[in-house]
This record gives sequence, C-alpha cells and structure tokens, in this order.
Amino acid sequence: MSRINAQRLMADLRSLAEFGKFGTGVDRISFSPADLEARAWLLSRMREAGLDAAIDSVGNVRGVTKNASRAVVIGSHTDSVPKGGWLDGAMGVVYGLEIARSRLESGRAARLGVDVVSFQDEEGSYFPCLGSRSFCGELTEEDLGRTRTATGESIREAIARAGYAGGAPWCLDRARHVAFLEAHIEQGPRLEAEKSRIGVVTGIVGIRRLKITSAGQADHAGTTPMTMRKDAVRPLLELGHRVHAEFPGLSSLDTVWNIGSLLIQPGAANVVPSSAEMILEWRDTSVEKLDQIEATLMSWISDLNRQPGVELTSTPIARIRPTLMAEPLQTAIEASARAERARLMRMPSGAGHDAMVVGHHLPAGMIFIPSIGGRSHDIVEDTSEEDIVLGCEVMAGVVDGLEAV
Amino acid sequence: MSRINAQRLMADLRSLAEFGKFGTGVDRISFSPADLEARAWLLSRMREAGLDAAIDSVGNVRGVTKNASRAVVIGSHTDSVPKGGWLDGAMGVVYGLEIARSRLESGRAARLGVDVVSFQDEEGSYFPCLGSRSFCGELTEEDLGRTRTATGESIREAIARAGYAGGAPWCLDRARHVAFLEAHIEQGPRLEAEKSRIGVVTGIVGIRRLKITSAGQADHAGTTPMTMRKDAVRPLLELGHRVHAEFPGLSSLDTVWNIGSLLIQPGAANVVPSSAEMILEWRDTSVEKLDQIEATLMSWISDLNRQPGVELTSTPIARIRPTLMAEPLQTAIEASARAERARLMRMPSGAGHDAMVVGHHLPAGMIFIPSIGGRSHDIVEDTSEEDIVLGCEVMAGVVDGLEAV
Repeated sequence: MSRINAQRLMADLRSLAEFGKFGTGVDRISFSPADLEARAWLLSRMREAGLDAAIDSVGNVRGVTKNASRAVVIGSHTDSVPKGGWLDGAMGVVYGLEIARSRLESGRAARLGVDVVSFQDEEGSYFPCLGSRSFCGELTEEDLGRTRTATGESIREAIARAGYAGGAPWCLDRARHVAFLEAHIEQGPRLEAEKSRIGVVTGIVGIRRLKITSAGQADHAGTTPMTMRKDAVRPLLELGHRVHAEFPGLSSLDTVWNIGSLLIQPGAANVVPSSAEMILEWRDTSVEKLDQIEATLMSWISDLNRQPGVELTSTPIARIRPTLMAEPLQTAIEASARAERARLMRMPSGAGHDAMVVGHHLPAGMIFIPSIGGRSHDIVEDTSEEDIVLGCEVMAGVVDGLEAV
Repeated sequence: MSRINAQRLMADLRSLAEFGKFGTGVDRISFSPADLEARAWLLSRMREAGLDAAIDSVGNVRGVTKNASRAVVIGSHTDSVPKGGWLDGAMGVVYGLEIARSRLESGRAARLGVDVVSFQDEEGSYFPCLGSRSFCGELTEEDLGRTRTATGESIREAIARAGYAGGAPWCLDRARHVAFLEAHIEQGPRLEAEKSRIGVVTGIVGIRRLKITSAGQADHAGTTPMTMRKDAVRPLLELGHRVHAEFPGLSSLDTVWNIGSLLIQPGAANVVPSSAEMILEWRDTSVEKLDQIEATLMSWISDLNRQPGVELTSTPIARIRPTLMAEPLQTAIEASARAERARLMRMPSGAGHDAMVVGHHLPAGMIFIPSIGGRSHDIVEDTSEEDIVLGCEVMAGVVDGLEAV
C-alpha cells in the first residue's frame, strides 16, 4: 500500500513547472517574476494541505505541521538556473509537500510532523544557498548587501521588491527538528549506468580549487634557443599531465578532479608564452583525501620550481568543506529502498545542495534519483515518472521509520 | 684602412630613423605616410650617391650601379612592424647604400657593382616579403588583391595610392646579379651570449605549424566520475608534455619548437572541457629533421587516439621550407670577419627575411650582428655603433672578395 498519492505528486510537480516554463524546462531564477509567482502558488498549496504556511524574511516558503512537537524538515529549492530543468530542486520540495499532506491524511503527522521548505536562491543568482544559510543562522547582514552582477540589485533590495521584508525569519529549531531530508535528481550518469534507481548519498563533496600561475618571458619562438627560454606553459603541461597520470593512484573511486581552464599570454603560435594560468579543482567527501592531494600537488609544484626558468605560484580560489550525511539516515534510506525492492547504491554528491549547509547543523540525509542521460542544468533534464514516484515512496518510508527515534 | 665611411653610414641610419620616429624606435608600416616619405628620402640619397635609382611597381626602392655589367644585390627592407625598432631591415638597406657609394668613390664599382634595394613590405602588413617576391617573379595577380585586415585596402589599391602604379617592376637579372647579401640584426640572444660580433647565417629555418584539435564532452566536473568523462584537455596535456620532454632527444641544437596557444572550451573550472585546440610549431634548417619530427608527432597522436575517449585530429596550418645560404658566401663572410679580427659564429636564422625568398633564386648570404638583450620588434631594439660599423666593414670585404668570382 502506497504511503503517498502518486497522481497528486505528479500533478503538483507539473503545475509548478508552468511557472517560468521554458520549452521542456523552466527559467525561474530566484526573485524573478516567475519565481515569486511559484512561491505564491506553493504557499497556497501548503495551506490547502493544512500546513501552517508562510514566506519568511528571505523568501523561504515553509509549511509547518501543526499539532506536532517534533518534525522532519523536508525540502529543497524552487529557483532554477537560467534555462534549467523542471525537477532540479522543485522535486525535493514537492516530495516534502506530498509526504506532509499524506501524513496529515493518515493521522501519522501527530507522531512526527513534516515541515516543508523551499529554500531561497540555492542556485546562487544572488548568493548560493541563501535560504538554507538563513535557516541555519549563517546569514550575515553583510551577505544581504551582496548584489547580482547582471542587474546590480542587492539581496536586501530584491527582498523588499518581492514584499518579503515584513516576514519573520524561519529558523532551525533544535527542540523540534530531528532531521533534514532532501531528495534531488542525481545530475550525473552513475545511477543510470549502474541501473540503480535510488542513490543513498554518503556526503556532499568538499571542493578545493587552485589557481596555478606560471611566470615566463615572451621571446621570439624562432630566434631564441630552447636553452635560453623561460616558457610559462611548459611546466604547466608537465604538472597537468602528472595530475591526470598520477591522481588515479592517489584517490578513491569517488574522487574527481578537473583542469578546466588554462590561459596563455600572449597566446601566439610564434611567441614563447610569457605567462600562463591553470585552474585545477578536486572534490572528495574525505577531508583527509582532499588534504593529501593538496600536499602532493604542493610537492610537485616545489619539484617544478627547482627546474631552471620555472616560476610557479599557487593560490587557493575555493575551499568548500565536505558535508557528511548522517549515517543512521543513510541506513534508514537504504532500508526503505530495500522495502520497495529498489536497486540502490551509495554515492557521494559531486554537486552542492541545501543539505550541504543544513548538514552541519542537523542530521541530514539525501536521496538521489536517476537523471536521464546524466543531464541537468539544461531544459533536457528529465527523470521517468516511475523513478520520481519511487523516490517519494522511499522518502515517506524513511519518515515512518523516524517516528520511533 | 676602412672600406666604408662609418660616419656617413651612421648619419644615414639616424636620418632614416626620423621617418615614423616613435620613441627610440619607428612606426613605419609599409605604405603608411612615414614609409612613403622614407622611400622618397632613400631614392634621393641613392641618386646623390650616383646610383640609377627608382621606385618600382610594388614600391621596391632600388639603386643600380651604372657602368657595371655584374653586380651584387645588397639590401633588406625599410618598412617596420608597428612600434618597431630602428635597425630591423633599415640597417641592411643602408649597408647596401654605403657599400655601393664607397665602391663608386674608390673606383671598384666598375669591377663589380652593387645594386641596392629596399624591398617592400617584408613585415607583411599586406603580404610578407611582397617586394622580394616581386623581384623573384613569385608574385601573382591574385597576390596583389590581398587586403590588409585592419583597413580592407588591397595591395593594388595601396600601390595606386602611393603613386607607384606607373613604375616598372625591378626584376632579378641572372646575367647581371651574382649574389644577394643581406645584413640584419640577429633578433635573438645568441651572439650576445656567445660574445660573438658576427653571425654567419647557415640558413633560414623552415617552419611547420600544426593545429591539434581535441574533441571531448562537456560534463559537470563534480558529478561525472573520472571513468565516464571525455576530457578534451587531458590528451593535449600529455602530448604537450611529451613534446617538451622528448623533443630535445630528437632535435639538433638549432631546432626550436613552441606551444604558444592552447584554447579550451568552455573554459570553466567546474566543467569538463568539451573541446580544445593546441598550436605547436617547430623550426629547423633541415627538411629531414622537420620531417622526422612531424612523423614522430603523428605517431604520438596515433598512440593517444588509441586511448578510450581520445579524439585528436591534426591540421597543418603553416609549412615554410628552409632556405640554405650559399656555402661559398658563408665561407666568404667568415673570411672577411676573420680579417677584421671579429669573433664570429655560424648560426641559423630562426626568423624570416627577404633572403628566404631570394635564396631560392640567387646565391644568398646573410650576416647577423648582435641585438642588445636579444630584443627586437620593439622600440627598445638596439645594437652598439661599433657592431653596426663592423658588420658593414665585413660585408664590404665580402663584396671585394666577390670581384674575382
């Protein structure tokens, strides 16, 4: 017997996708007219479900289960990247709505409530995870002054424009909130490739990003003998090759890395490069692994700097700590998936989510469901209806299991 | 006893540097007002010297020794790169003027004349070595239709604007012309580093330039496992590193190579590169060496293409044959330098010159003199007065030696 109403779940998801509809996807960046309309719609759907709903002082839409002393927070975000997909974020919010509603109907809400939330601006049009940071008390007055590059509007101005300035901030309540659950599309190809339907997220990877700058000297590439050159690109080619050749031996199967940018000055075929700049990032859920890779890189850079004519400097440009998902919640998700006879796998999340913020304040669990072709942040993003419904069933089962905790 | 008038040589060089003067250098691109004025000045100086002078149909300024049945052609170019140096090209032309003039004064001109030339547009504002190509009969009607990117003006239009359209083309005369001599600043650091004052050019290097394109697939650099990526940059890092690591073992001391350009799409730190394009060039005076390197590169590219997910293609984008300088002229330059007790070295020219064109039609010899700090194509370009005068003496000695040939 189903814990949720699959038809109602899909109908709500499809209704939500009408706001900012763009082809098969949505263009619903935070604080855009489409985003504000979607929030108003969500607010009314929460009220229709019998939740105590409001939009808070940063634009978080929250629907609290009344007459429950303890609650699981379930949600994600309803803002999108420009020309994004219909499920990224939205699905996790509608799961929360459907599970809260079903529990009110079945009478289980009194044992353990569900507080549903759509966190504001997860995608960071103004500031990534704005809403979940506010929920966790991490947002500063200074943060509210941050401006959106394209328009110059600050977060504070956007809030005022939206009419949210009068709202109370909705904050984490340690006495009430026992856990945070977020479901999300995988945004990668692993579940599909492994024919798994449920991903039990072990953690959200930490990210280290290093800019490596190489100083050389521009010279005529015809008239300057090789031994008299100071070629800024040569050591970066060596370093980049070494990264791809030796990182597999240093890393776990879940570690990923990328050399996505290498800029060369002056960039002409017949001029010895005078300077170059490479950006290298690596991600892992283990701080030890992140540290070990960084130490290895530093030793390689030192090795290179001992070669004549090599002058490399490195600057960290991003350093995001990993967020581990609560082990009991991973076990609970796994148990619920098994009860649904769903093939599952444990996996890290390589991308950021609101659970990355909330997980440092409250036990957090994340469920991934397959992305068709691994695609996301694009209007082609999609997931089969069966997988969407299954994910919600699994999460509803997890909430049932938490009643006894 | 000096064969030339050093004071007059330096005075002419300094007068010429006034045309298009730009700081300590000159901005005298071909067919610019400054270039046209410099040509008019040169024409009158040739006539004052007693030469049969004219500006030909492409703008070459030539001064022919009258009453001589055989002549050495001596010259270079008076056009410059934008904001270039005062000696690049100009020096080789004024050497010709001074040697022709001195030989007329000493009466040696009757035994062997000197035909002085300033070839048009060596630097290629419209078409590299335009003037020497015309002199050698290599210029086509189609070439005259070539346009300068910045202005859209064709060579034919520039010639008409300059008033040169009525002139006769000045062409190589096999019955009269016994050799071509060109002196030039080295444009590199080797003479200075070796404390040599005369470079005996063995040849002008051939250039091979290859564009290597790599096809990949853009993916999220956090959510796509390493084994499921098709990273366009990885194989180019491997290839580029291999080039710098293994070319020294494949090449002669004179071989040079450069990876001056590597463009990555989309070029974001967190996106797996979808495509990349590297430009690699190598230069040598030996066709065999150029071929051997190309074959090796092709085998490395084939090796890489056997790796899963690698898709490299290579396209030749430049293929310039080497030009060997005539061995007897190299010997003659060496003998003349030794007579002047000048420390000398044999060396290839890594840059192109008019001798690169003329050398395929007439025995050609080139003399390099030191560039201070190896600098050129910049207003800081300079050479000591002693080295400038010495170079002209050495060349005058070579011409004396050719009387008997």
